[in-house]
Amino acid sequence: MSMLAGIAADVRSGRRSAVAIACSALAALDRDNGELVAATRILAAEALDAAAAIDAAVARGEDPGPLAGVPFGVKDLFDVAGLATTAGAGMRRDASPAPCDAEAVRRLKDAGAVLVATLNMDEFAYGFATINAAFGTTRNPHDRARLAGGSSGGSAAAVAAGMLPLTLGSDTNGSIRVPAALCGVYGLKPTHGGLPMAGVFPFVDSFDDIGPFATSVADLQLVWGVLGGAAEQGVAAPRVARLGGWFERNVAPELLQGIDAIGAHLGGIPMVELPEVEAARSAAFLMTAVEGGSLHLPELRRRAAEFDPQTRDRLIAGALMPGSAYRAAERFREWFRAEAARLFEAQDVLIAPAAGVEAPLVEDPMVVVDGMRVPARAHLGIYTQPLSFIGLPVIAAPLLRPGKLPLGFQLVGKPGAEATLFAFAARLEADGLIGVTSPAT
Amino acid sequence: MSMLAGIAADVRSGRRSAVAIACSALAALDRDNGELVAATRILAAEALDAAAAIDAAVARGEDPGPLAGVPFGVKDLFDVAGLATTAGAGMRRDASPAPCDAEAVRRLKDAGAVLVATLNMDEFAYGFATINAAFGTTRNPHDRARLAGGSSGGSAAAVAAGMLPLTLGSDTNGSIRVPAALCGVYGLKPTHGGLPMAGVFPFVDSFDDIGPFATSVADLQLVWGVLGGAAEQGVAAPRVARLGGWFERNVAPELLQGIDAIGAHLGGIPMVELPEVEAARSAAFLMTAVEGGSLHLPELRRRAAEFDPQTRDRLIAGALMPGSAYRAAERFREWFRAEAARLFEAQDVLIAPAAGVEAPLVEDPMVVVDGMRVPARAHLGIYTQPLSFIGLPVIAAPLLRPGKLPLGFQLVGKPGAEATLFAFAARLEADGLIGVTSPAT
Repeated sequence: MSMLAGIAADVRSGRRSAVAIACSALAALDRDNGELVAATRILAAEALDAAAAIDAAVARGEDPGPLAGVPFGVKDLFDVAGLATTAGAGMRRDASPAPCDAEAVRRLKDAGAVLVATLNMDEFAYGFATINAAFGTTRNPHDRARLAGGSSGGSAAAVAAGMLPLTLGSDTNGSIRVPAALCGVYGLKPTHGGLPMAGVFPFVDSFDDIGPFATSVADLQLVWGVLGGAAEQGVAAPRVARLGGWFERNVAPELLQGIDAIGAHLGGIPMVELPEVEAARSAAFLMTAVEGGSLHLPELRRRAAEFDPQTRDRLIAGALMPGSAYRAAERFREWFRAEAARLFEAQDVLIAPAAGVEAPLVEDPMVVVDGMRVPARAHLGIYTQPLSFIGLPVIAAPLLRPGKLPLGFQLVGKPGAEATLFAFAARLEADGLIGVTSPAT
Repeated sequence: MSMLAGIAADVRSGRRSAVAIACSALAALDRDNGELVAATRILAAEALDAAAAIDAAVARGEDPGPLAGVPFGVKDLFDVAGLATTAGAGMRRDASPAPCDAEAVRRLKDAGAVLVATLNMDEFAYGFATINAAFGTTRNPHDRARLAGGSSGGSAAAVAAGMLPLTLGSDTNGSIRVPAALCGVYGLKPTHGGLPMAGVFPFVDSFDDIGPFATSVADLQLVWGVLGGAAEQGVAAPRVARLGGWFERNVAPELLQGIDAIGAHLGGIPMVELPEVEAARSAAFLMTAVEGGSLHLPELRRRAAEFDPQTRDRLIAGALMPGSAYRAAERFREWFRAEAARLFEAQDVLIAPAAGVEAPLVEDPMVVVDGMRVPARAHLGIYTQPLSFIGLPVIAAPLLRPGKLPLGFQLVGKPGAEATLFAFAARLEADGLIGVTSPAT
């Protein structure tokens, strides 16, 4: 099932060369990236050098590691030694080059993976659209007239298009889970703090996380291990429930039916509710605005005109929010965290939509929430925000529905419960309920 | 040296009765509190009942504990079962009675101490003056024309006046250390989180702490142990330095000379500096305003007119501060915390002023900072704020200068280093450099 383990096995055994694999990733990028705008920088020379080094190690009888020769890309906010970390901002194209790789990048390279590209995102990770004034709009491989979602849109699209089998993204409010859902791939948002953040451009410290995109549960789990994820022992027979209330409002009927089908397949699952989810979403939204505004205020004062207008205005508004509201949101969060913990006393896995709808059109980047047309950039994360707000681990998984636009949902666990999520997702995948479909081309 | 251990020994051995001791505390309160306004509620019947129970236990051959019969009082923000916790606010006089004692109160009572009074403070602990529109102005026992300092002014004055040998206060920005200095008694501000906060009316979660006032280092240490303080092993020969820069500006010459004398007594001590102390003070000030504003905003919206005007306007201003500034202060704090940790690699105890001056006059509650006359209420804590901001433990100790108005300084350690501070303070006390003097009456 693991594409990544298969590549590594081929490379380690000498059946295929890492250079040939890197070449085919570069060829795919060359062919498709012009239209998809998933990659922002293609690191051909570096990738071929790294791949050649892997092949040389194999030739010497050494083991290059569990991801030997696996081509990968990283969202534009991971430090890559020698490159400016743009964080999706045009004005940062001339930032000082990063002196060394982000810790997560280093760990993947140490495991033999080959960095091939940096990937597009909303400026400073502030959006669910990957509509970027400086680097362009990432297109959805399943329908190029549609958004890939964001902010890790390039990371999701590169995997969905088959250009790269593995990418890294970051998720503060849903920036892995939303594009994973819209592009129909798997994404992992780990327990807050579960994966190394060193060398990752920050946004909202207390709910920033990084994680992989891949095409199978096994791949996701393999990379999670390589990155240093330390899950507790999984629960063999998890108690599964679906989230109701807020998590059923404004959701496409086909997605709800997909969750129904999973419930039926499991012999029926209860519906449970988290209290005050809408307030949790608002509190996460507010804290994000304030922290983003605070982080970028010095540059906003210095050169506001160089920001992407779509993030600039949100950041300025955030910088003006009263601190008393921020503190109220922080206090509310502790209450909400305790309520979620209570729910997990009786459940191990909660199922909820990731994005509620299919990918919006690039020409009409709006979604409808409670009857109002609102910008997708700000509102595609209404089901993801309340969960990352309190640091829960989530696998974003695509419903298996070949030939249709992707719809994805979240498998949510209590902190540290990644192992349970992986085991449960693997079962759903084996049973043919979830999985990645190649885009019709 | 320990007055408290002496009282307890007398009571445990039956030499004196707890009732007699409670009576003499009540008599002292009856005589002096009218002018001093240290106590807000005198719990005569409850105290006599509790004392009688202690005496009965002794009569039965039981040991009532290490504080047997010690009369004590608590700042008006500790929950006392059956009483409204006013937090110094007139509008909270009719708040629901607390269902049980604050954890710290419970621990003192469990050790045999007898609660005799609740004590005055600035409304909601927001001030260094103990000028309270609802409960009156606490007077300094050394000169009743002067302030006791705040916000735990009642707690400091009650001990300085000899009305109670032990009181509890709370310290967010200096609310134990400033009144201890102005009233010439000892006060302990523990490592942040070192003593139990359950049942204590909050102000700024991330730097609220509680601690005792007493008349000797031994008393302070005894109570610290009873309250559950868990200090690391002390350093036998601590490296001592004095803080320069900000901590020497605007300080009364006699206080600097007192610190000089301590340095000379120790054979000379180096002067060291913390960087950006003024910014640390500003950041603590700002976070306090924002958190206080956030905490009280619902009541400000409902009944602003019932607040003490002197706190109301500060709270409203705080509620309007931008969250981006609050976040910037939080980020700065982490940097400043690391800088302090670096200083403690080479030092064990830092000496700094507690308040820089003698107690201001009640009729002119101002201090001069950098040539400007500014309100004592807001500015008496300029040397204490930067230290509690990062959670350091501090003993506030009075220079021994009989017949003069008190001046006090801070003995500052790294987190968890209370044992080192106690040992060092005990040495200074034994050597006659610090100590409590009874007010001339």
